[in-house]
Amino acid sequence: MTRWPYQCPDMYQWAQNLFPICRSITGEGLRETLRYFQNQIPPLQIRSVPTGTVAFDWTVPDEWNIKDAYIADSSGQRIVDFNQSNLHVMGYSEPVDTWMSLEDLQPYLHSLPAIPHAIPYVTSYYRRRWGFCLSENQRTALKPGQYHVVIDSTLEPGFLNYGELLLPGKQSEEILLSTYVCHPSLANNELSGPVVTCALAQWLLGLKERRYSYRILFLPETIGSIVYLSRHMEEMKRKTIAGFVVTCVGDDRAYSFLPSRRGDSLADRAASAVLQEFVGKFDRYSFNTRGSDERQYCSPGVDLPVVSIMRSKYDTYPEYHNSLDNLDFISQKGLEGGYGALRMAIEVLERNYTYNNIILCEPQLGKRGLYGTLGAQTLAGQSIPLVFNVLAHSDGQRDLIDVAKACEAPVMLCAEISEQLTAQGVFQRT
Amino acid sequence: MTRWPYQCPDMYQWAQNLFPICRSITGEGLRETLRYFQNQIPPLQIRSVPTGTVAFDWTVPDEWNIKDAYIADSSGQRIVDFNQSNLHVMGYSEPVDTWMSLEDLQPYLHSLPAIPHAIPYVTSYYRRRWGFCLSENQRTALKPGQYHVVIDSTLEPGFLNYGELLLPGKQSEEILLSTYVCHPSLANNELSGPVVTCALAQWLLGLKERRYSYRILFLPETIGSIVYLSRHMEEMKRKTIAGFVVTCVGDDRAYSFLPSRRGDSLADRAASAVLQEFVGKFDRYSFNTRGSDERQYCSPGVDLPVVSIMRSKYDTYPEYHNSLDNLDFISQKGLEGGYGALRMAIEVLERNYTYNNIILCEPQLGKRGLYGTLGAQTLAGQSIPLVFNVLAHSDGQRDLIDVAKACEAPVMLCAEISEQLTAQGVFQRT
Amino acid sequence: MTRWPYQCPDMYQWAQNLFPICRSITGEGLRETLRYFQNQIPPLQIRSVPTGTVAFDWTVPDEWNIKDAYIADSSGQRIVDFNQSNLHVMGYSEPVDTWMSLEDLQPYLHSLPAIPHAIPYVTSYYRRRWGFCLSENQRTALKPGQYHVVIDSTLEPGFLNYGELLLPGKQSEEILLSTYVCHPSLANNELSGPVVTCALAQWLLGLKERRYSYRILFLPETIGSIVYLSRHMEEMKRKTIAGFVVTCVGDDRAYSFLPSRRGDSLADRAASAVLQEFVGKFDRYSFNTRGSDERQYCSPGVDLPVVSIMRSKYDTYPEYHNSLDNLDFISQKGLEGGYGALRMAIEVLERNYTYNNIILCEPQLGKRGLYGTLGAQTLAGQSIPLVFNVLAHSDGQRDLIDVAKACEAPVMLCAEISEQLTAQGVFQRT
Repeated sequence: MTRWPYQCPDMYQWAQNLFPICRSITGEGLRETLRYFQNQIPPLQIRSVPTGTVAFDWTVPDEWNIKDAYIADSSGQRIVDFNQSNLHVMGYSEPVDTWMSLEDLQPYLHSLPAIPHAIPYVTSYYRRRWGFCLSENQRTALKPGQYHVVIDSTLEPGFLNYGELLLPGKQSEEILLSTYVCHPSLANNELSGPVVTCALAQWLLGLKERRYSYRILFLPETIGSIVYLSRHMEEMKRKTIAGFVVTCVGDDRAYSFLPSRRGDSLADRAASAVLQEFVGKFDRYSFNTRGSDERQYCSPGVDLPVVSIMRSKYDTYPEYHNSLDNLDFISQKGLEGGYGALRMAIEVLERNYTYNNIILCEPQLGKRGLYGTLGAQTLAGQSIPLVFNVLAHSDGQRDLIDVAKACEAPVMLCAEISEQLTAQGVFQRT
Repeated sequence: MTRWPYQCPDMYQWAQNLFPICRSITGEGLRETLRYFQNQIPPLQIRSVPTGTVAFDWTVPDEWNIKDAYIADSSGQRIVDFNQSNLHVMGYSEPVDTWMSLEDLQPYLHSLPAIPHAIPYVTSYYRRRWGFCLSENQRTALKPGQYHVVIDSTLEPGFLNYGELLLPGKQSEEILLSTYVCHPSLANNELSGPVVTCALAQWLLGLKERRYSYRILFLPETIGSIVYLSRHMEEMKRKTIAGFVVTCVGDDRAYSFLPSRRGDSLADRAASAVLQEFVGKFDRYSFNTRGSDERQYCSPGVDLPVVSIMRSKYDTYPEYHNSLDNLDFISQKGLEGGYGALRMAIEVLERNYTYNNIILCEPQLGKRGLYGTLGAQTLAGQSIPLVFNVLAHSDGQRDLIDVAKACEAPVMLCAEISEQLTAQGVFQRT
Repeated sequence: MTRWPYQCPDMYQWAQNLFPICRSITGEGLRETLRYFQNQIPPLQIRSVPTGTVAFDWTVPDEWNIKDAYIADSSGQRIVDFNQSNLHVMGYSEPVDTWMSLEDLQPYLHSLPAIPHAIPYVTSYYRRRWGFCLSENQRTALKPGQYHVVIDSTLEPGFLNYGELLLPGKQSEEILLSTYVCHPSLANNELSGPVVTCALAQWLLGLKERRYSYRILFLPETIGSIVYLSRHMEEMKRKTIAGFVVTCVGDDRAYSFLPSRRGDSLADRAASAVLQEFVGKFDRYSFNTRGSDERQYCSPGVDLPVVSIMRSKYDTYPEYHNSLDNLDFISQKGLEGGYGALRMAIEVLERNYTYNNIILCEPQLGKRGLYGTLGAQTLAGQSIPLVFNVLAHSDGQRDLIDVAKACEAPVMLCAEISEQLTAQGVFQRT
């Protein structure tokens, strides 16, 4: 793999800071997380949508907040304690304060027999329940007896919140970055996503000039993207040329790609080019294995060109959705891999013009001083310098990504050559 | 292979009853066969076309009937006897009654040196000849001497007959089933074809409701389909959405598929889906190996979407067109395999609507009680329940067969899910 | 490989006669070569374009002529002598007459350390320089001392010349044959090209009837095709249905194919069919490895359907562009292989009509006497005679090349059958 030219040294630190917060699809943990990112990227707007709001087929549920939760034995000792891991409480648990025998308690307990030292991540947003999650080891160590079961939570009218950052560019067409901020202490899925998105937003904010406009969203998964689409779909359909759901970009085991529903959009082509060029070996998944907000963005009638460039894809690694997906599973290096791949995809899109070679027959490069440039190098297996292939394939119909593919050459190198030829008056952007 | 849910216990018995009849492209044997099927499916109409009728490039030849035929030695003993096997006489043999030496007789004899115990099947419809077919073993046992050669046949003006059954459905678009009834005592090619077609017709007649209309034809091969097309082509071109030549569907060795000329018609897609889904392993042949009435239905200018789903394809098994293609070669189980595959293809077509998911973003399945249904199951390799993939791919443009392919899922399962979603108001048929 | 039915016994002799001439992109050697071909094909017109003429992005450089050149040692002995090989002088060397030390001379010397006994071929058309080419063995044998360096050349206003032969046919659409005549003593690249082109021109001149018109060009490479296109591009774009750059067609090691930029033109399809059918195994190169005048013919905005059928492609064999590419590298047999493949491609184009089967359903071939013809043969793996597949695929939309591909059958055999069917009134050319 080419080493990424990109670094963003703060990413792992951000993940460390955010890891302890108990996030959910609503509530204070979500707001605290959004405010944290707002500190990194101040133009980020935090939006509020009242609970009970209808969005397409869905209704925003009551806001959930939690102060404490535990299972204590008859001696008052906490056996399972929310303060030790916020995964111990099923997300959206309704309040409870009662004594139960172990036998009666069992239906409310969730564990993973196959990974006995891991606490699973379980939620119940739309059906009121309560429950505790614990490791199988903890569970089998429980002795018969009476237990004090306490969940000090509230489910009340309030708000669903999300972060929105709109960055204007020279063109009104937009690139969408969407990430989710509704999981409690889980690192690759999900903190890596918002952390990398924040780093991308910082980079985009710092650019002197952006060709495209950017719509950057920090949402609770599913209900957040549905609510957002219910308010902005028509505009997004009109403007979005490419989009990325940013998720699972923090470990260092693999690179992977999930296509859009149609599979041939500009986002698909840019992502494929970048992964082939800079990563080389990566896992290409079927759209049928999707599992994040592209489920909404790519649904029939919405049909946005949205893909995912990931490191280890959700639902493919044993640490997925349990307490092993922690800060040890991700790393600064892993995050920079995810950041680099996404940034490269954006850079490819920013440079992806359609060039038209306006000189009939080959230009005489000698008299233009172009032999001494990048383009004069010859790629393996090609008998003429690359510049001639870029000249031959830039017919005003294929964009740069397709030209690079036709040239069997790196897209960024073709971009350099194309810009030089444009400066020389040989090419015109169409 | 999935065991077929379909049974039709009479098929093998029908084949046994019909096997002894001496059929040809015209004549009493053909009419007797058609009357037999009319007894099973009374609405079947038996049509008559006068010999001498011109159909496109062809003219219906004189009607052929035969009472007896034999070669007897000088002692009067029958050495080759039509009463033992109607294959012994070349089809359409003109009458003869003469004495010949063995040497003079040889040019009129046909045998198969490579399969010395089999009697070949030979015809000469359009050039007047006579001949006898016998096993190579019989032939080499013939001793020099004089032989009495008798064929008591007639070639006279009369009729070409075929059976036609038109079943109206809710839609005027038609599915064509075409089979041929012109071979004498041969079992896989051909009795299996009309027998399975008869069973399909019984099933279709018994349906409370048919979506499509059906055109079911029992024809003498080639001249029969040409005559029929000369009278009904324009109507068939207007109405036919898919067609099947039913042939070689009685043995239990293999499944096979012969595509239409264009290769991508609805019939091709339905047949491929069914064979992949229910059979798994099957032989896919090139259109260039065709050999039955699709030669007419798919010819340029006719261009009907007609395919064949077969068991062992004609011209690929050693028993083809000789006396070994007998009642031992086919079986009730083999016939039910052919019947099941064709019936499944028809059921797929009947259910092949184009569904439009009319809810933007994913519907909330929980509140609709859809999680407890078929659709909630997750297929191997897909991280979300199948119902979500059916939802995602049903965009009002792809029909069910294509949706199932996109979902990498069984078409019948996708049909169940789609109908449930339609009942729930999530889908509309377009 | 099928043995070519074509012979042209003079080709190798022509190459022998032309080999010693010192050709370049202008000058007397080029004119002498053109006159030689004019002797073989008298209608060939020799055109003259003044130096200084502007053609698209290029300007025709001064005419170069050379009488003598050598490096002599202090005793006057010629160490490197133009009279021994015209490769010894860098093409387009400006005149020089001076004494230099070996050290000062080194920058003007060119050799190939990797092939120490070969003299490289080097030119400098557009930047005024001088230089000598010699084998690495010669170079390392040079002793320190003073050397007399003489190049008796001229660079003066004059003409660029090329040969043009326009052969009218029944149709105004043209087939282009373009070859180059600007290399000195080099055999496969380039003499094989003009020699085979000359043989093709003789054959075409001798035909009683040509369907297509032919534009046959003998040009200096690059500047010649650019100058020619600057004068004839619009006409060529309007008329050219297929074109071939004839180069590297003289050795007997391999066959190879270079596609057009678009890759699916009639020229591509004809060349592929011929190479698959008559050669079988051949090397298919990417357009990105092109290196001759298709660089101009296929450039954006010109977009002519031009391909190359070659023996060993330029830039892929060690003898390329050095003195080992000599008369031993090519052979009469090698030349006839190149000639045969190109002639076959032209014959395929001449016969490539689109036929329409105007009889509905299969014609009755028996009454037409077609069973005894070529078409009655059955190809391996096909259960019916080829004639039926030609009938089935000739739908008035696919041309002969595509019909042969659909039939999985030789194109020339399909042509024979199609013409017989046309004569019988079964087919019509569309």
